[in-house]
Amino acid sequence: MVSGGDFEWTEGGITAVPGILAAGVHAGIKATAARDLALVYSSTPATAAGVFTTNRIQGAPVKVSRERLRSGVAQAIVASSGCSNVATGEQGIRDAREMTEIVAKHLRIPDERVLVASTGIIGRYLPMEKIRPALPKLVKALTPQGSRAAAEGIMTTDTHPKEAALRVEIGGRRVTIGGIAKGTGMIHPLMGTMFGFIATDLGVERDALQGALRRAVGGSFNRISVDGDRSTSDTVVILANGLAENQPLARGDRRLRPFQQALDALTQRLAVMLVKDGEGATLVIDVRVRGAKARRDAEMAARSIANSPLFKTAMAGRDPNWGRVMSALGASGIALEEDRVAIWYGEEQVAAGGRLREDVRWDRVKAELAKPEVTVTVDLGLGAAQEHIWTCDLTTDYVKINIGTS
Amino acid sequence: MVSGGDFEWTEGGITAVPGILAAGVHAGIKATAARDLALVYSSTPATAAGVFTTNRIQGAPVKVSRERLRSGVAQAIVASSGCSNVATGEQGIRDAREMTEIVAKHLRIPDERVLVASTGIIGRYLPMEKIRPALPKLVKALTPQGSRAAAEGIMTTDTHPKEAALRVEIGGRRVTIGGIAKGTGMIHPLMGTMFGFIATDLGVERDALQGALRRAVGGSFNRISVDGDRSTSDTVVILANGLAENQPLARGDRRLRPFQQALDALTQRLAVMLVKDGEGATLVIDVRVRGAKARRDAEMAARSIANSPLFKTAMAGRDPNWGRVMSALGASGIALEEDRVAIWYGEEQVAAGGRLREDVRWDRVKAELAKPEVTVTVDLGLGAAQEHIWTCDLTTDYVKINIGTS
Repeated sequence: MVSGGDFEWTEGGITAVPGILAAGVHAGIKATAARDLALVYSSTPATAAGVFTTNRIQGAPVKVSRERLRSGVAQAIVASSGCSNVATGEQGIRDAREMTEIVAKHLRIPDERVLVASTGIIGRYLPMEKIRPALPKLVKALTPQGSRAAAEGIMTTDTHPKEAALRVEIGGRRVTIGGIAKGTGMIHPLMGTMFGFIATDLGVERDALQGALRRAVGGSFNRISVDGDRSTSDTVVILANGLAENQPLARGDRRLRPFQQALDALTQRLAVMLVKDGEGATLVIDVRVRGAKARRDAEMAARSIANSPLFKTAMAGRDPNWGRVMSALGASGIALEEDRVAIWYGEEQVAAGGRLREDVRWDRVKAELAKPEVTVTVDLGLGAAQEHIWTCDLTTDYVKINIGTS
Repeated sequence: MVSGGDFEWTEGGITAVPGILAAGVHAGIKATAARDLALVYSSTPATAAGVFTTNRIQGAPVKVSRERLRSGVAQAIVASSGCSNVATGEQGIRDAREMTEIVAKHLRIPDERVLVASTGIIGRYLPMEKIRPALPKLVKALTPQGSRAAAEGIMTTDTHPKEAALRVEIGGRRVTIGGIAKGTGMIHPLMGTMFGFIATDLGVERDALQGALRRAVGGSFNRISVDGDRSTSDTVVILANGLAENQPLARGDRRLRPFQQALDALTQRLAVMLVKDGEGATLVIDVRVRGAKARRDAEMAARSIANSPLFKTAMAGRDPNWGRVMSALGASGIALEEDRVAIWYGEEQVAAGGRLREDVRWDRVKAELAKPEVTVTVDLGLGAAQEHIWTCDLTTDYVKINIGTS
């Protein structure tokens, strides 16, 4: 589903973008020696936009960053992993603000230009006695090659850092879009803890940037599901620092189209990386529902299948148990005509008219299921609307990772 | 939550009820030597009522039984396990009808008085060549002590048969209510595959019986959740054969109140048995939400917590990770004021005002979590409405049981 456009993938993650520096250091929030602080910095003030979790319980960092984004200008994102600073009351807000103040002081920029994000255990205060002395080191560690270190600094149960970057020509100028992300665990439709920090040297006005980010997230991070839970801390932020020196793109500008396509491609690439690294996942599954009366129906059906523990455990066993697809479909609550439903694993159709085909080529179905990415397609036979959700399988490792980790 | 009333528990399950015979035999639907056919029979025609799955995809047996129940009279329930006869089109309907016809013929009663239910893999045809010759044996095996064998005949991944019976005085007569049930796997709020077959010798008119059953199911089988999936085959049926020779209870009859209380107690006892035997479960959790503005809010919040894989895996590790309770609460979509939320494990409060209490007695929390049944209580601090859901923990065994079992 990551469609190619007129752009080329490149190395360097978020620091592939001109004027963007990044760093990641170890402060001791995590029990291990892993990096647990990250910083992304734009050498010039950038237009900024953000999309946050829809969970009604939101972390202190989400509250602070939302407030800061009202100005539409930001220059840095400081993030920590190991403790989410959620359900921590006024103290939590003070701690989140203090993180931005220390970073701002050492960067010599106003506090208001620093965004903050934290991920990890809920219900504990940040260990500020460890974070305070580490923040100046974090600022000193900033480099134009720091993307990987920053991507490591935001990892929780992720098994590897995620970064991506691309170059694209927009309005006659070659610009770069780069990003880092973290996911796993609670990844879910409707923003489920994942971070996506994105930067570009393209000049974009605030409203246009917010609209583009919202659309990109709608087609990427909001189209993935690992376990159906939603986090209290999900944060996607974009900084557009204008170093490409183009006339900034405003709403209605025709150049927004190639920008949107490129931003969509970047966020989709990062989103699929998150699914691939879902807790315990061994398989990426693209659940496609077509032939729906309305797109909303297709989405509900795809989410119901993608979130079904029985479907996901069957996929962990590479078992083409299409009955579990039917059951999850029926449980989605959308209007259905059972005898019109058709189901495919990859290119191989297993069910037609709501029941098993007589001539299923099981050897080919097995071959489809042996691939690292599997498409499961459901045709409802009722209309022309379609939608899809990326998910992963549910394995014993998912449970092992999540038992007793508070 | 199983409240005591003016009744006494007794042995014998569904065959504790006068006039009720039952049987369970092995036909070979399952690969093992286990019983896979069950029959419950009332020696006299009974008033009958049923409640079925809300899944939009419904098994052929559900369709046939719904149709049969229109008359309000039934005398037998034939059930099979190992194959659910779902997504099987016209052939599935013919197979379900044939099962009832063979049973009816050997019982010498009209086909229309036989209900049918099947549980197991979806999308396969019933192996009628094995079922046909076994059904006469099933009828011959009927005995007034057959409850246990019938309860075994409906098991799938259940680890033990479930049966319960009680005696209660209604309108001056001592009557019996008994039942068998099966669950595990897809057990879910809103009926998720579970069977509950219940019988009583009380005379009850059809409308009153249907109303009482619906209320009882709403407070029992619809208040449990194992994995958030809903089955295509859930069936709860009650037969009231009137052998107590009372004046049949009609709508508005005052005697309906003690009947409802007893029926509630019986169905709740069976429902908790199902949760206790949820796939891989090691713990029954009663998730209670109070202080809600409306009961609907309390229910949504309790279901969101009870279905959260992160909450359930934490409970598998006996980890009082209240942050995951907060997160699931926030994801439920109900109106919340974070700083009013309080959380208890058993009698021990861990959070107040939306954050960790400073004086939590962790040793007592651990002791609460060491019990085989744990209550998790959330007070929203917004109103007086409350609701609860029974669920179980999510263990690696859940995944092992469900991998590759088609």
